[in-house]
Amino acid sequence: MTRYFEDYVQGVTTDCGSVDLDEASIVEFAKNYDPQPFHTDPGIEGPYGGLIASGWHTVSLAMRQVVDCYLSGESSLGGSAVDELRWPAPVRPGDTLRFRATVTSARTSASKPDRGIIHTFIEGVNQHGVTILSLNVVNFILVRPTA
Amino acid sequence: MTRYFEDYVQGVTTDCGSVDLDEASIVEFAKNYDPQPFHTDPGIEGPYGGLIASGWHTVSLAMRQVVDCYLSGESSLGGSAVDELRWPAPVRPGDTLRFRATVTSARTSASKPDRGIIHTFIEGVNQHGVTILSLNVVNFILVRPTA
Repeated sequence: MTRYFEDYVQGVTTDCGSVDLDEASIVEFAKNYDPQPFHTDPGIEGPYGGLIASGWHTVSLAMRQVVDCYLSGESSLGGSAVDELRWPAPVRPGDTLRFRATVTSARTSASKPDRGIIHTFIEGVNQHGVTILSLNVVNFILVRPTA
Repeated sequence: MTRYFEDYVQGVTTDCGSVDLDEASIVEFAKNYDPQPFHTDPGIEGPYGGLIASGWHTVSLAMRQVVDCYLSGESSLGGSAVDELRWPAPVRPGDTLRFRATVTSARTSASKPDRGIIHTFIEGVNQHGVTILSLNVVNFILVRPTA
C-alpha cells in the first residue's frame, strides 16, 4: 500500500521488523567502509571486548528496514538531514536488531504544495531491549494525488 | 604513522583524498541498504533527474577515507555521536568525491585520562567544488603512551 504524506501522523510509531546480524556481514561492511580493527578482526579483544559492527552499518540496516516498512517508492522524495545520530551501545555478531520509526512532526511545504516535510525519530534495540541506535531524520513525501 | 590525541589540533584540516563513484556501486549499495527507485534504477528520471547515490553510501565512503587518513587503529576508540548530517546536493554516477576533516575541538577526558574527545567537521565536495556532504562527529582517541 502506497503511503503518502497524509498517512504520516504525528505521534504514530511503525514497527519496522528485525534483522539478524552475523560476523561475516559485520566484517564485510567494515572492510569496505570502516576498516578499524574492532570492526574487521573477529579475534580482537580491543576497547569493546570483541568485534562490534560499524555504526554506519547499523544505521544502514535501519535505513533498509525503514525503506521497506515506512516509506513508499511512489511518494518518497528522499531525505535531506539527520540530527542526533547516536550509538549508545555496541552491536555484536549474533545480535538481532529491531527498528521502529515514530513521526515527530508532519507539515505541508509552504513553497511546494505537492509535498510535506516529515520529521521521524528512528530507534533500534537489540534482543535484550537495549537501545543501540537512535536518530532524527527529515524526509520529503508527496501528498496524495487528487483523483 | 600512528596519530594520538596530541596530534589532533583544533583548526587543522586534513585532506582525506578522493573516491570515484560509478553507477554499479551506487546501485549495489542501495539494493542492500536503501532500495528507493532513485538509488536503484539507472534509467529513472524521478525527482532528481536521474540516479543518485544513497546518502548512507556517501557518508560511508567518507568514513572509509577518514579511517584511512585521519584515524589510527592503535589509538581510535570509535565514535559515539554525529550531528548536523547534511546532503546539500545529489551525488551522481561518474562523480569524484573529495573529503576533508577539520578538528573543531580537542580536550582530554575528565573521567578517563588515557583518552581525549575530538570533535571533527567532515565535508565532501564533488569534482565541481559543490559540497555534497557535511557532518560533525565525536571520537575518542587514546593519548600518546609514555615511554
